[in-house]
Amino acid sequence: MDATLSNGVVRAGTQARERFYDSRGYGQPVDGGAVELAPVEAAHLLSRGDLDAVDGMDFRAFLSSSAVSAVAYFVYADLRDRGFYLAPAGRRDDDPTDTSTDDTAAIDSGSVDFAVFPRGKGPWDDEVAYHVRVVGEREDVPAGTLGDAVLAIVDEESEITYLETDRPAIEGTSDSTVPPVEGTLLDERVCCWEPPAALYESAFYGQRIDDDAIQLSLVEAAFLAREGTLTVDGGVDRILDRGRTVEGDRFDRRLRVYAALRTRGLVPKTGFKFGADFRTYAGVESVDDLGHSERLVRVLPADHRFEPRDLALDVRLAHGVRKTMTFAIVDGNDVSWVDVQRLTP
Amino acid sequence: MDATLSNGVVRAGTQARERFYDSRGYGQPVDGGAVELAPVEAAHLLSRGDLDAVDGMDFRAFLSSSAVSAVAYFVYADLRDRGFYLAPAGRRDDDPTDTSTDDTAAIDSGSVDFAVFPRGKGPWDDEVAYHVRVVGEREDVPAGTLGDAVLAIVDEESEITYLETDRPAIEGTSDSTVPPVEGTLLDERVCCWEPPAALYESAFYGQRIDDDAIQLSLVEAAFLAREGTLTVDGGVDRILDRGRTVEGDRFDRRLRVYAALRTRGLVPKTGFKFGADFRTYAGVESVDDLGHSERLVRVLPADHRFEPRDLALDVRLAHGVRKTMTFAIVDGNDVSWVDVQRLTP
Repeated sequence: MDATLSNGVVRAGTQARERFYDSRGYGQPVDGGAVELAPVEAAHLLSRGDLDAVDGMDFRAFLSSSAVSAVAYFVYADLRDRGFYLAPAGRRDDDPTDTSTDDTAAIDSGSVDFAVFPRGKGPWDDEVAYHVRVVGEREDVPAGTLGDAVLAIVDEESEITYLETDRPAIEGTSDSTVPPVEGTLLDERVCCWEPPAALYESAFYGQRIDDDAIQLSLVEAAFLAREGTLTVDGGVDRILDRGRTVEGDRFDRRLRVYAALRTRGLVPKTGFKFGADFRTYAGVESVDDLGHSERLVRVLPADHRFEPRDLALDVRLAHGVRKTMTFAIVDGNDVSWVDVQRLTP
Repeated sequence: MDATLSNGVVRAGTQARERFYDSRGYGQPVDGGAVELAPVEAAHLLSRGDLDAVDGMDFRAFLSSSAVSAVAYFVYADLRDRGFYLAPAGRRDDDPTDTSTDDTAAIDSGSVDFAVFPRGKGPWDDEVAYHVRVVGEREDVPAGTLGDAVLAIVDEESEITYLETDRPAIEGTSDSTVPPVEGTLLDERVCCWEPPAALYESAFYGQRIDDDAIQLSLVEAAFLAREGTLTVDGGVDRILDRGRTVEGDRFDRRLRVYAALRTRGLVPKTGFKFGADFRTYAGVESVDDLGHSERLVRVLPADHRFEPRDLALDVRLAHGVRKTMTFAIVDGNDVSWVDVQRLTP
């Protein structure tokens, strides 16, 4: 069967509806048994020999033409190979029996390329398994666009990495109440020489220097000083000044996220060994009975644009240490949270 | 015992040589049974109660003073706790029986803080186990300074991560000889429609599109075109132009490293899933019998300065996937190699 291309839409004639749409979920039915196909759908039919040509082009000529995006085609073909039917986002199925509207919001955000139906379902069903966004390895991804869709990142060898992005609820049961404590600012830390036991032992602030002394990081100290718990010569401003001197704006962003995590009942500790800002514990009662930290948190400004390679690095590392990778995106006083995890569709 | 501080050197009097140097490797003997101590050594003796005071300061007062660097002290104390004797780099031991000179080069580079002696040995022996450089988490590390010393990175909670840095020989036995092949440039890849089998199957260039077609990444294509193996409309310049358009200067650096790896008998493939530039195979004979890739390679310009956190991230990830993290530092036409691995002293 041959098809024609016009204004970015491929049209295949009579019998196409029965052969392509009804039995295998390609395209969108139009009058007279014809279907309209997106270029990626037509390319896939060409690659399988189900279509012979589009405007005289065979598969290779069509893929080499400007009619179809190669990266979108690779993702489309990969998801078909995995047993899914999928449709370009924003397609309005004209089948009068279909009243599906559930992917309208994601489509309107302009950040979704495909609606992927659950295995065994298709465009005639009212269900979407994944909203997928196609991203080339060299394309930046603005932090604010994560949270709704699955990223299908096509690397330079056209291998595809799927990353699921969600907006998690950040909640824990750790208590951070501590009696008043005094400290001495010492370079990039604050030393508390005979602190109340709760400081370290139940609220898990700081690290031991020796049996009677605890050192706090600058971000811990700034949080405690601002809460009125910690007293330091020069007050909280002196700690903030030191933090800004050694970290610049990043210090205020990290302090905001630190405070947000503590307020939600999590204990943040340094994530340095994992290349992150924090690792977090959701249910600390005592440092003697500390569980596994559940999250790695990276703090980012609202205008951050991810390089997909950096995303792949963070997510891979978190997966390897059985933690969830969480990005804390700071916009003024607001923090929004995005979890990113590998997905095998 | 009390000691005095003058010009950055702590001096402890008679009997100090016997008590501190001879039996436990602290300080440097001077006339009359006295020793001169570096501030970190004095701080450690204070913390153990072996010294009572330095110029009237107890341990806490001394650590809070400007006489001693807190991060250097934490590293010194940690290595002592691990059972090592160590000395500040550059110390000329005046013990006439000691003719040690083997750490002169590293000391002269100014990038070493401590000479750590093998367990059971001390400053009176002629042997150094590690040259250690102390780095605060927030200090940049110029790429060119890696390769000789162990980095002891002190994070914001004063935990220490030891990273060993070496200059490896990069050598493999993979053969990259391939008969001539034609290709079509397609966005960010080159498609070879009916290539010689050796292209993919023995030399492991590219990825399969289908049974009769291979796609090459831009860096693979540029290398093969420059070698005269691959013919593309517009020649190698068209591939280079495309690469520079999508990656900027990074493309030329990656191509230089790609070529250096191939020339040394390694097969580089994308390291995207690990957040690196390449993963490499040292002994490819056939893709059907592909072993584990041994290295992750990150390509960097010669003026790159590492943030210690990024180093920790790369090294941790590589360790988790049982590969060696290798940095390829590109300076004009030269590539130098640095391996970085976690070390537990």
